Amino acid sequence: MSSSASGNSTALFTDHYELTMLASALRDGTADRDCVFEVFARRLPSGRRYGVVAGTQRVLDALAEFRFTDAELAQLESTAVVDSATLDWLANYRFTGDIDGYPEGELYFPGSPLLTVRGTFAEGVVLETVVLSILNHDSAIASAAARMSGAANGRPIIEMGGRRTHEHAAVAAARAAYLAGFATTSNLEAGRRHGIPTRGTVAHAFMLLHDSEEAAFRSQIDKMGTDTTLLVDTYDITKGIDTAVRVAGPELGAIRIDSGDVGVLARQAREQLDRLGAKDTRIVVSGDLDEHAIAALRAEPVDAYGVGTAVVTGSGAPTAGMVYKLVEVDGRPVAKRSEHKASRGGRKAALRRHKPTGTALEEVVYPCSAPPEAGETDRQLQIPLVRAGQPVADLPTLEDARQRLRRGLVSLPWEGLKLSSGEAAVPTTFL
Amino acid sequence: MSSSASGNSTALFTDHYELTMLASALRDGTADRDCVFEVFARRLPSGRRYGVVAGTQRVLDALAEFRFTDAELAQLESTAVVDSATLDWLANYRFTGDIDGYPEGELYFPGSPLLTVRGTFAEGVVLETVVLSILNHDSAIASAAARMSGAANGRPIIEMGGRRTHEHAAVAAARAAYLAGFATTSNLEAGRRHGIPTRGTVAHAFMLLHDSEEAAFRSQIDKMGTDTTLLVDTYDITKGIDTAVRVAGPELGAIRIDSGDVGVLARQAREQLDRLGAKDTRIVVSGDLDEHAIAALRAEPVDAYGVGTAVVTGSGAPTAGMVYKLVEVDGRPVAKRSEHKASRGGRKAALRRHKPTGTALEEVVYPCSAPPEAGETDRQLQIPLVRAGQPVADLPTLEDARQRLRRGLVSLPWEGLKLSSGEAAVPTTFL
Repeated sequence: MSSSASGNSTALFTDHYELTMLASALRDGTADRDCVFEVFARRLPSGRRYGVVAGTQRVLDALAEFRFTDAELAQLESTAVVDSATLDWLANYRFTGDIDGYPEGELYFPGSPLLTVRGTFAEGVVLETVVLSILNHDSAIASAAARMSGAANGRPIIEMGGRRTHEHAAVAAARAAYLAGFATTSNLEAGRRHGIPTRGTVAHAFMLLHDSEEAAFRSQIDKMGTDTTLLVDTYDITKGIDTAVRVAGPELGAIRIDSGDVGVLARQAREQLDRLGAKDTRIVVSGDLDEHAIAALRAEPVDAYGVGTAVVTGSGAPTAGMVYKLVEVDGRPVAKRSEHKASRGGRKAALRRHKPTGTALEEVVYPCSAPPEAGETDRQLQIPLVRAGQPVADLPTLEDARQRLRRGLVSLPWEGLKLSSGEAAVPTTFL
Repeated sequence: MSSSASGNSTALFTDHYELTMLASALRDGTADRDCVFEVFARRLPSGRRYGVVAGTQRVLDALAEFRFTDAELAQLESTAVVDSATLDWLANYRFTGDIDGYPEGELYFPGSPLLTVRGTFAEGVVLETVVLSILNHDSAIASAAARMSGAANGRPIIEMGGRRTHEHAAVAAARAAYLAGFATTSNLEAGRRHGIPTRGTVAHAFMLLHDSEEAAFRSQIDKMGTDTTLLVDTYDITKGIDTAVRVAGPELGAIRIDSGDVGVLARQAREQLDRLGAKDTRIVVSGDLDEHAIAALRAEPVDAYGVGTAVVTGSGAPTAGMVYKLVEVDGRPVAKRSEHKASRGGRKAALRRHKPTGTALEEVVYPCSAPPEAGETDRQLQIPLVRAGQPVADLPTLEDARQRLRRGLVSLPWEGLKLSSGEAAVPTTFL
């Protein structure tokens, strides 16, 4: 049987039917067939022009912990999900196959082969749920966050939406947002787990705790110094700014406005701060901002944005709609053939064609059995991730992903960066 | 210092600013002021007529694990989030206050005081993020799932959306959907953690793995018996149903249709099954169903629904928009007073007034300092959850929550159960 119970096992982040399929396949002898599973999205969320791959590293981390320890096996036995032969097989489960995929930070389009898992049916089928959970969540957040980063046009964004989503999803969302260009997060666990810089000063509760706005400002300045961010909209913003500069002096780091028409308020605040001599005091705005609100603030004197709900919920697209499909069995392409949701069989890879200027032209998805001649400006999109069950060396880091995404966005045709609804920025061609 | 590191600590599911507020308050002496924090939603998601409270038990579980162990303290020290005096305070952190709240499964409306946390500022402020993460997520899912359960009108729904959301959120979503009337889940971890019945048979991959549809059906029947669900839409549904009944006999438990116009297909399938003598074979439909699609299938011969994406993403409302506000300091009501997002200060409770017939009339939110006279048909909505830091005995179970919600929905005026957009089912009155 397996090693002792581990609190970190990811093995039950799995749909019941993966294991009943496994049980049947073990019994009828098909479990050992060589299979290829492919992750792709049939379409982008409505109106979106590109997607951003995120979560791949988390998939590899989950794979390393995908172990059926005594605790998981006992649960499956007591609930009679599978028979004892299947339990024995699961006790020894280790993925020994190969995985290739788009690296994190890569753009994707409908049909892009985002992850290709090769191994026996048994080894591959049990990974479906956890792989999709991670990629669907993280890519949805990164895809929304990239639009916000673009709209912010270089101004920093702090991710502060953890309270609006599941406590663990919050950590992954902070990572995905950072991958997509956000500067920092409010989430301390994301700081610990992923090394993302965390930031924060005070909420309105701190203001209300004190006997006056001035008392709260004084306490904050005493503790954090003048290079902090004072929250000026608890009572009256104009008076708040007066008090803030009086207490902190013109060296005050920043003010934050969290409610109201933040564009108008930012302009008034800028004038007032300048008048008070606080010309270098920055203005941070927050409060239900999404990519459209950020874009609308482009002409306003805003120095940084705080974004919460919109980013952690994917700004209208909380899941990326990716699927994990069996595309090849013992070298033979397979695909669902009913009139609805037909898929393309066979193991595939992809390259992106570019103009000589570097602008992306099309996503070419091709059968691995018949790769096209690659031109000088073509770029292969999949990289090796796992070989014989082990992660390959020197996988891209989170910083690599940030840079990759920046390069990718620069390569898009300009229409591809528009926030309005439209077609995919480049067409997908299936060879 | 604290006890040894625990992998289960929830203490860093916290926004940076909670701890910087704490540090300032410890320094200026306000940290010990008696405070009341209140969780409420300013409004329901656009067009929704009621909300469903879910996550309260998970909040209490998270509270029990809210400990700054050496691991958390080391992280906070190395990133200089707070000073050493604050670290010392956190090392000894235990919530010692009181919590009251709406029990799980209770309906809520704008302004309902869903959770009331009483304790010192320091004790209460650090809980904000994790409390909101849990309640906002779980209540959003339960609120969507309740509409689906209502639309299904007694037919069972299986939750199968785990792959469309973060792997941990998936487990909580399965719980929230079950709380809101779903029959089962596909999520094995939800089975383990929350005792929810899990179900599953096969995916299309199992069909494609085999040399023919018939071979796949035979394998499944051999393993799982005839009282299983055969997936008939991989190739041609009509042929699939013929083959299914030929292989399994008329005792076949169910067929599943996962694509296409499932209403039309269900009707055709029912006729075909009846013609083949499989009159008791059930029809399960799935594939992008939401509450509206379920309602539209009410007249069709469908025996069970599989619902995925829509339920785990809150069917358009992935977060409940709840906030955690400081409402009282040392017995004095406090509230943000700027023109935007004004709040009502003071500790509050609520009761729901009903007609003598039991139909709900209004949600009455009142200051605890001036409770209204309660009539015979009024029902107090908050219950004690925590006293002196410890959960009270005999808290409601998940089954209790299911029953509470059923009773609550029956009590709504009939307009309140409509799926179309509208006002809150009952008005909120603030005394």
